[in-house]
Amino acid sequence: MRRALELAANGPATGPNPRVGCVILAADGEVLAEGWHRGAGTAHAEVDALSRLPRGGARGATAVVTLEPCNHTGRTGPCALALIEAGIARVVYAVTDPGHESSGGADRLRAHGIDVLGGILEAEVSGFLADWLRAARLGRPFVTLKWASSLDGRAAADDGTSRWITGPEARQDVHRRRAAADAIVVGTGTALADDPALTARDAAGALLPGQPLPVVIGGRGIPADALLRSHPRAPLFFATHDLTAVLADLHGRGIRHAFIEGGPTLASAFVAAGLVDEYLVYLAPALLGGGRLALGDIGVTGIDGQCRLTIEHCDRLGEDLLIVARPR
Amino acid sequence: MRRALELAANGPATGPNPRVGCVILAADGEVLAEGWHRGAGTAHAEVDALSRLPRGGARGATAVVTLEPCNHTGRTGPCALALIEAGIARVVYAVTDPGHESSGGADRLRAHGIDVLGGILEAEVSGFLADWLRAARLGRPFVTLKWASSLDGRAAADDGTSRWITGPEARQDVHRRRAAADAIVVGTGTALADDPALTARDAAGALLPGQPLPVVIGGRGIPADALLRSHPRAPLFFATHDLTAVLADLHGRGIRHAFIEGGPTLASAFVAAGLVDEYLVYLAPALLGGGRLALGDIGVTGIDGQCRLTIEHCDRLGEDLLIVARPR
Repeated sequence: MRRALELAANGPATGPNPRVGCVILAADGEVLAEGWHRGAGTAHAEVDALSRLPRGGARGATAVVTLEPCNHTGRTGPCALALIEAGIARVVYAVTDPGHESSGGADRLRAHGIDVLGGILEAEVSGFLADWLRAARLGRPFVTLKWASSLDGRAAADDGTSRWITGPEARQDVHRRRAAADAIVVGTGTALADDPALTARDAAGALLPGQPLPVVIGGRGIPADALLRSHPRAPLFFATHDLTAVLADLHGRGIRHAFIEGGPTLASAFVAAGLVDEYLVYLAPALLGGGRLALGDIGVTGIDGQCRLTIEHCDRLGEDLLIVARPR
Repeated sequence: MRRALELAANGPATGPNPRVGCVILAADGEVLAEGWHRGAGTAHAEVDALSRLPRGGARGATAVVTLEPCNHTGRTGPCALALIEAGIARVVYAVTDPGHESSGGADRLRAHGIDVLGGILEAEVSGFLADWLRAARLGRPFVTLKWASSLDGRAAADDGTSRWITGPEARQDVHRRRAAADAIVVGTGTALADDPALTARDAAGALLPGQPLPVVIGGRGIPADALLRSHPRAPLFFATHDLTAVLADLHGRGIRHAFIEGGPTLASAFVAAGLVDEYLVYLAPALLGGGRLALGDIGVTGIDGQCRLTIEHCDRLGEDLLIVARPR
């Protein structure tokens, strides 16, 4: 299973599908084939591994796979059926598939007389798939909220200028993380005020291989010459304040990880709605004072209602700090 | 000199006087005596070391001392004179005395035919004495500004409640640092709103050995039954907004390290006046939103005017973070 997890990590971190690895073992423990999922529309890990064997080569073998084989026909057929047809005698998996449509694979395998054992190395594989599992259970993308502020919580000086509060290392870290997300989300206020490109770029300004889908939420119109309209992917516009509906729509489009970049109004709305799974707070060693706060009203009135987080990491990035936190 | 620095560290970190160590060496390098300063009103390091020798025992010897011997009669006589009278032949020191009244010791020694060499291990000893040296050069106390806030920069929830944002480890750290300061300074707003005791206490609530002088700045009256009036040291009240004058007054009273504890109005005034030497920012893993900011207006209008700091440390304290920073 540990080998299957290593194989899984070869897969892409973005996209709708989980990263899954599979090892096919002979009865004597010999490795017959290995496979992993390369992203939506390509073979699942089990089918990828089976494809490396001659016809009948998996008969009586054991399939070790990090996620319960799916029972769903999407762009590819159900893996449970592929395993049955290949004559696999035993399936060992780590984590149960939480999907509404794709679950039930283990039952289907058992109904065909296959010996099925789940829960092997479950904690480790669950950790590896944590964000995808959370998105699958919630039926919406995993939401990362990012902001950059001075030590006193300001996102800009009083006159609105904000370039730059954080340094190049912090800004580059943001671009790397953008590239690992499926969508980057801003409000119309930020889109109008900052005219952001919403691309993921390297230090020289060149586009990184992964480009998140640009998403703009809010009622105001975005000019035809806005930079984000030149994004390599056509932007999505949602003229609504119903964030739950936006996330459901994005989930339906295969977005599993949304990166919320601001501004304060949109950030506060996500916090107030309890829709944030991860916080990235870039803190610059600076004080600004004034009224341009990174976060506005989040619906907390008294100290007993404070929104408590758990700090997962606190790292220096050049002169800045990056605090990674999750809701308690 | 390194031994003299070790001896210096035995002294108290609070009070008006620097921590100084002294080693008396015979011509052959044998250590004849050691001494250090135990705080205002007690013998200076040189006199302490000399006192451990019989009359005439230091004749022709070398005194190695971390700070230039003083040339000033305060509560004790000038060390330069004591060294001359003891027949010391050579004085080696690390850091020049920056004091307006106490400097000139090296010249006086030389005028009496003593061989004087300064600047030995100067960087290391300067680092050790940095805060005291800064206070001596500025003619005001070294100013530490402390605040505790949520990750989004709020010192309280919107209804004013703030107990507790930070956890017990952070609060205990504040008490330890209070005990190492000479004065603890608050504004009348905080004194009235929070009724703080302004004492340094241990986790069980018992008073620590060191108690900073409580200082209250502002125009509003403090009730007779305010907790700070029961402080072991009689509080000082300054009905003024002239922070420079307050610091000069405190310096005249022997205060070398002032610990500014709030609230936001006083903190912002110290920042705006450029009077902060060290920042302690306790950040709780919480979000509050709303209008109760740890820092208000500090006179910065555009990003080019931002008050840049250097982060010296960032440490976890229980669930919280402590960021120690200094002005650039």
